[in-house]
Amino acid sequence: MHSFQELVLSFNKGFDTNHFPVSPASLYEPSEYFLNIGGKRIRPVLCLLGNELFNDIHEDAYHLAHAVELFHNFSLVHDDIMDDASLRRGKATVHTKYDSNTAILVGDVMLVRAYEHLQKIKSSHLSKILELFNTTAKEVCEGQQLDMDYSKMDKVTMDEYIHMITLKTSVLLAASLEMGAIIGGASTSNCKHLYEFGKNIGIAFQVQDDYLDAFGDAALFGKEPGGDIKQNKKTFLLIHALEVANPTQKLALENLLNVDAEDKVEKVLAIFKECEIDTWAENNKAKYLKKAFEHLEAIAVTSERKKPLIELANYLMNRNQ
Amino acid sequence: MHSFQELVLSFNKGFDTNHFPVSPASLYEPSEYFLNIGGKRIRPVLCLLGNELFNDIHEDAYHLAHAVELFHNFSLVHDDIMDDASLRRGKATVHTKYDSNTAILVGDVMLVRAYEHLQKIKSSHLSKILELFNTTAKEVCEGQQLDMDYSKMDKVTMDEYIHMITLKTSVLLAASLEMGAIIGGASTSNCKHLYEFGKNIGIAFQVQDDYLDAFGDAALFGKEPGGDIKQNKKTFLLIHALEVANPTQKLALENLLNVDAEDKVEKVLAIFKECEIDTWAENNKAKYLKKAFEHLEAIAVTSERKKPLIELANYLMNRNQ
Repeated sequence: MHSFQELVLSFNKGFDTNHFPVSPASLYEPSEYFLNIGGKRIRPVLCLLGNELFNDIHEDAYHLAHAVELFHNFSLVHDDIMDDASLRRGKATVHTKYDSNTAILVGDVMLVRAYEHLQKIKSSHLSKILELFNTTAKEVCEGQQLDMDYSKMDKVTMDEYIHMITLKTSVLLAASLEMGAIIGGASTSNCKHLYEFGKNIGIAFQVQDDYLDAFGDAALFGKEPGGDIKQNKKTFLLIHALEVANPTQKLALENLLNVDAEDKVEKVLAIFKECEIDTWAENNKAKYLKKAFEHLEAIAVTSERKKPLIELANYLMNRNQ
Repeated sequence: MHSFQELVLSFNKGFDTNHFPVSPASLYEPSEYFLNIGGKRIRPVLCLLGNELFNDIHEDAYHLAHAVELFHNFSLVHDDIMDDASLRRGKATVHTKYDSNTAILVGDVMLVRAYEHLQKIKSSHLSKILELFNTTAKEVCEGQQLDMDYSKMDKVTMDEYIHMITLKTSVLLAASLEMGAIIGGASTSNCKHLYEFGKNIGIAFQVQDDYLDAFGDAALFGKEPGGDIKQNKKTFLLIHALEVANPTQKLALENLLNVDAEDKVEKVLAIFKECEIDTWAENNKAKYLKKAFEHLEAIAVTSERKKPLIELANYLMNRNQ
């Protein structure tokens, strides 16, 4: 049994290498650049943890982990173009450092490279893994499309937001665990519980992310809070606030969304507090965590084996940065 | 044995359907739109022809053909963004009709869908097919990157241009044939000759395409010739002209490249004719066709079985549109 940190090191040992040939450098240099700017490598390690929950780690889990990390980077490179994000992990995004056309192709070759790693899996479970991988890949694209659609809509319901967030971020966490479990020889029932564990952890993580962006401690959070508020981003907090605010608060909130006032963040936060959005967010996060742990509990292996997953969940949930 | 036209009909019978679920419509409606604006379906039919050169067509060849056509459409959708092309097959491109962000995701889901079809192949040759498919997919991306790079360079050599064109267009034609042949149970040697046949036909086709854009009959060609010349596109013709022109012609040509004169096309064509570029292009096309047919000849099956491939090559090479 290995800890999350041990598995990160173990994964990086294989992953910190060149993933592409040298030529054409105009395509592959930007690809290597992005793969080398770091990242927490959570998803590939989830593949390894999913495997080790049931069995010793098989070589195939490393092939899977490589594929999942390449897929994740493919989606980041393309998302950054769409969101016009200039920074990722504190470094220039591919389309900013190079150009959008190169970034499109960089994402494309990373996706193909992901499939090359999947192809190395020798396990008889390959077809099951590919089915889940492909479904998840399409869901991640759907989530990104919905995120863009919602940013243009006046009103987004909580159900719509949860659906979008689930597709955009949770399903890949969930599928990473389940694909690892498939390699570990897990039963269908255990696989499904592990998937639901990952999915709910993912949603809880997003609630926390939205919470920290509004109420986080600047020193611990690493950046000034209020970014989402400034951008009128539809978050768990804003969507819930618009649902529970009284008519006066709702009007004030809607007026604030239409301006770029200097005290916008401060005023929106004041309304959030009046509506007890901070407490609600804490409770909402706890609700998803509870669901996640119920599914983990239902997995038929000894408690000892579940420890690294609990450790990971705690690591993700107590993060202040 | 089937003719090219029969196989187009047979392929379209299965392909003319919805490829994606209904929701989210903002992603999948644009995807279906693009898959429904037509196309000659040459690549998927090459898969079927490659199979039938050696054996009765296996169901797997249809899965492969679907994958190849989806891959081709993925690359077109992304290329159209990069080239800022407003029309494809006479219809609005995805990024023009919708927007670039949607077009990025439309390409992405088409590529994933291509892999879903590959996964349906039951043949024991699947891993060989996937290896060739993945290599080809990366080469096509490399070709597009080189095409963009070359458009910004002052000078491109003939070897560089042939390398770029081979990656951008020929390898997919070649691989479609070879992957079909693998399903048909062809030997490695036969596979390689068929690949080279496809590759050389692809280059010959590009020579012809460049020729027709300069010297084609407007009525037969379906559009006013000279588009490449107006855009200073580095083509077989321009690259060769710059190689063989005398100093006076070369200077005149270089001056013409720097202006947008009304009589630019006419003047460039006059220099092309002085340099006998039209004759050279015909000979160059014939050279690649000869190579292609030598490889076809070397394939160890009866002449009778090769007829549909010869028919296809003639169809591609006598096209005036």
